[in-house]
Amino acid sequence: MIYDLIVIGGGPAGYLGAIRGGEAGLNTLLIEKRVLGGVCLNEGCIPSKTILNSAKIYDYARFSKRYGVTTEGAHLDHGAVVKRKKKVVRTLVAGVKMQLREANVTTVEGSGYIQGKDEDGYKVVAGDDVYIGRNLLIATGSEALIPPIDGVDEALDSGYVVTSREIFDLKEVPKSFVVVGGGVVGLEMASYFNSAGSNVTVIEMLDHIAGNTDTDVSGILMKNYEKKGVEFALSSKVIAIGDGKVIYEKDGSTYEVEADRVLMSVGRRPVTAGIGLENIGVELNRDAIVVDERGRTNVPNVYAAGDVNGHSMLAHTAYREAEVCINNILDKDDLVHYETIASVIYTNPEVATIGETEKTAKEKGIAYDVVKLPMQYSGRYVAENDRGDGICKLLVDRNHKKLIGVHMIGSYASEIIYGVAAMMEMEMGVEDIKKIVFPHPTVSEIIREGIFRF
Amino acid sequence: MIYDLIVIGGGPAGYLGAIRGGEAGLNTLLIEKRVLGGVCLNEGCIPSKTILNSAKIYDYARFSKRYGVTTEGAHLDHGAVVKRKKKVVRTLVAGVKMQLREANVTTVEGSGYIQGKDEDGYKVVAGDDVYIGRNLLIATGSEALIPPIDGVDEALDSGYVVTSREIFDLKEVPKSFVVVGGGVVGLEMASYFNSAGSNVTVIEMLDHIAGNTDTDVSGILMKNYEKKGVEFALSSKVIAIGDGKVIYEKDGSTYEVEADRVLMSVGRRPVTAGIGLENIGVELNRDAIVVDERGRTNVPNVYAAGDVNGHSMLAHTAYREAEVCINNILDKDDLVHYETIASVIYTNPEVATIGETEKTAKEKGIAYDVVKLPMQYSGRYVAENDRGDGICKLLVDRNHKKLIGVHMIGSYASEIIYGVAAMMEMEMGVEDIKKIVFPHPTVSEIIREGIFRF
Repeated sequence: MIYDLIVIGGGPAGYLGAIRGGEAGLNTLLIEKRVLGGVCLNEGCIPSKTILNSAKIYDYARFSKRYGVTTEGAHLDHGAVVKRKKKVVRTLVAGVKMQLREANVTTVEGSGYIQGKDEDGYKVVAGDDVYIGRNLLIATGSEALIPPIDGVDEALDSGYVVTSREIFDLKEVPKSFVVVGGGVVGLEMASYFNSAGSNVTVIEMLDHIAGNTDTDVSGILMKNYEKKGVEFALSSKVIAIGDGKVIYEKDGSTYEVEADRVLMSVGRRPVTAGIGLENIGVELNRDAIVVDERGRTNVPNVYAAGDVNGHSMLAHTAYREAEVCINNILDKDDLVHYETIASVIYTNPEVATIGETEKTAKEKGIAYDVVKLPMQYSGRYVAENDRGDGICKLLVDRNHKKLIGVHMIGSYASEIIYGVAAMMEMEMGVEDIKKIVFPHPTVSEIIREGIFRF
Repeated sequence: MIYDLIVIGGGPAGYLGAIRGGEAGLNTLLIEKRVLGGVCLNEGCIPSKTILNSAKIYDYARFSKRYGVTTEGAHLDHGAVVKRKKKVVRTLVAGVKMQLREANVTTVEGSGYIQGKDEDGYKVVAGDDVYIGRNLLIATGSEALIPPIDGVDEALDSGYVVTSREIFDLKEVPKSFVVVGGGVVGLEMASYFNSAGSNVTVIEMLDHIAGNTDTDVSGILMKNYEKKGVEFALSSKVIAIGDGKVIYEKDGSTYEVEADRVLMSVGRRPVTAGIGLENIGVELNRDAIVVDERGRTNVPNVYAAGDVNGHSMLAHTAYREAEVCINNILDKDDLVHYETIASVIYTNPEVATIGETEKTAKEKGIAYDVVKLPMQYSGRYVAENDRGDGICKLLVDRNHKKLIGVHMIGSYASEIIYGVAAMMEMEMGVEDIKKIVFPHPTVSEIIREGIFRF
C-alpha cells in the first residue's frame, strides 16, 4: 500500500502531524521506535509538571502559616510521586493512541529508515517491512546533549549522571544534587529536588540562568531559589565529574561540589543520524534539518517538524509546525509565526515569556517602549501571594503601538501567556487591548494594568 | 472651583473612572461616603479570593495523599485568615489611593448629593461643601437585596443573618451555616466555610445553582460540592428565619434546617436613592439608572457606570463601563461589548464563562455548534488533577464560524478566560484561533483542543 503520508517519530510533532493528516483524510502511517508521545510526554513536559505539582502542594503544606494554614509532619513521598507520574504518562499515552486510532492512522513500532525514492514515493523501512509514502514528515525529535567532560561517559553508564530521560525514575531523593545547565529543564528539576529535600547546586556557563529569558525575570527567579537554599554557580564550566563530586572552573579558579547525583541538562541536539536522510539528500545545518516557515525541507514532499529542525525545542512549537506541514501537504498555505510562541518555566513562581526581550528588540533595532510592573498591581496576586516579588514586563513597538513582548514571573503566568499569544497573533494594537475586559480579580489583569501605561 | 468631572462613589467604576479622567487631564473630584475600593475591594471580590486561597491551601494539605503529599494535623486558623484578609484589603485600598493621587484626583469623604444644575454645571453637596462639575459619573454601586422573609430584619439586627458585608469579619466558623441564594457570592462562601469545617446548606429558589451559568457546568460544580458534604436545597423558598433555624418550602412541603449563622445572598440592588438623581431628572428602571452602551443617562453630561446601572454587577464590567464613560466625556467614541465579558466563580474547581450559553443562543435564534470536552484532554490537567471531572464547552456560530461562548469548570479557568475575551473582542474565526500557539502543557490548551473539533 502506498501511504499519502509517512511520519517518522511519534512525539508531539509526529503524533499531532499524523492525527491532523488522518483527520484530513490522508492515508497516514506513523513510525515510532520507542514509545508514543515522545520525550515531552514520557520524559519531559508531562512528568515534570506532575512531580512539580506535588512539590508545590508539599511547599504549600509546609510554608502556609502566613495564609492561616499550619500542618504537622508534612511529608513528600517521592516513591508515590514517581508512581503517580507513571500513571499520568500511561493515561496520556493511551489518549494519544486513541486519537491516532480515531484519525485512522496506522502506527508501526520500529526505527524508520528512509531507503530512497522511486516513482511511487519515498521508501521507508521499519522492522522487516518497507512502506511507501508520497509525503514524508520527519519528526525524530532531539536527545540530550552530552558535553565532553572528563568522566561523564562512565558516570552516565553507572547512572551517577542522569539526563532528563532517567531523572524521573530515580527511586531516591539524592542528598546532594548537582544540575549542570541552568536552562528550563535544569531549573525545573532543581525546583523539584529542592522541595523534595536535596541540597541543590546549579552550575551554569552563562552569567545568568534561564537562557534567553528577560534578565529582570531570570534575576528574580534566581533570587527566589537562592532564598529556598539552591546554590548557583554562574559563569562556571564543569570540567570533571566522578567520585561523588563535580569539578568546575570559574574565573580561572577550580571548585568542587559534592554530588550524590548529577543531572546533565545543557541542551538538546536534533536526532538526524541513522534515519537515511542522506539517501534522499535532505539538507542539514549541523544536526538540524533545514526547513522554511512552511516546514518544507529542500527535498520535495519531505517536511520536518519539531525539535529535529532545531528551531525552538518546544512541544507546542512542534504541534504548530506539524500542523503547518500538514496544511501545506494539503495545499492550504500556512506558516509558523515564531515570534508569537511563548515559553514557560514551571518553577514556583512560574515564568512565562513571549516575543521580543529588550535585548532582542535592541539587536533588531526595533524602537520600543517598556513598562515593568510589580505583580502586586494585581489584586488577586496580593490576595494569594504574601510578599510576592513577581513582575510583568510589556514591550510595545513605539511606531506601530503594538505589543511585541511580554515577560512575567508570578502565579498563573503559564496559563496567562497564551492570551498574549492570541493578541500578538492578531497584531492587536495597544488601543485594542485596552478594550478587552479582564475578569477581576485575576492575575491576568496585570497585562491590562501594563497596557494602560502606554 | 468647577470640576470637569465629579464622580459619586469610590468603588471599581468610581475610582477607575476618576483615575482615567485624571490621567486624561480632567480636573476630577471623587466623592465616597464609606471607604475607597467599594464593595469589591472591601467586602467582595478581594476578601473572598483571600480567604478562598487559604481554604484551597488547607484542602491541599488535607487531601493530597494521591499526589504523594501527606500531613498530620492540618489546621486552618480562621482568625488568622480574617486578619490576613484585612491586611490584603488595606494594601489594596492604599494602592487605589496612590493611583488617585498620581492621577491628581481630589477625593472627598461624604455622601454625594446632587442638588441641581446651573449654567456652570451640576451642583453636588458632600458634607458642608457644594461642588460643581461639568460632567457627572454616578457610580454608587449596589447593596445586598434583603427579601421580605419572616424574621429576617430582627435576624439582621442581631447579626444572626449576615450579608456579604459582615461575613468576612465573622470571628468564629459557624458549626452549621446556611446560605440563602446559590449564586456566585453564596457559592464562594459555601466553599470557604465548607473547607473551614461548617456544615453548609445552600438554599436556592431555582432548580439549579450558579444562576445563568451553563447547566452542564453548574451541575458538575454542584456534584463536586455535594461530594465535599455541602447540602443543596433547590427549587426551595425560604419562608422564615430565627431560633437557630431556617424554614423553607419545597414542592408544597415545609422543611427546616439548623443554622448557627445565615448568609443572605439572593442578589444585589442598585443604590440610587438619596443621591438626588430626581433633582436633575435621571431616568431609572426600577432601581437601576438607565444608560446606553456609552454609559450615558438621559441627562446630558451625566453618566453612570458599575452596579448602579444594573447590567452585570461585576467589578470588571464596572471598570470597562467607567472607561467608556470617560472616553465619551473626552469625545472619544467608545462602547461596552457586554457579550465579551467573562464571569468567574472562584470555587474549587473554578468556573469561568463568557458569551452565549446554549440556552441564550437558542433564545436568540443563533445557529450554533457546540463541543464539550473533558478537561482530561489537557495534559497538565491530568498531571495536576487526579480523577478531575472538569469540562470545557465551546459554542461556535455556525454561519460565521466564530467563537460565541466558552464555559469551563476546572483549574485555572479564572485565569484562562480573559484570552477568550480577547479572541471574541477581535471576533476571531475558528481558523484564526487554530493558528494560536498555546504553550504546552497548560490547561489553556483545552481551548485549542476544542476549536480543532469545529
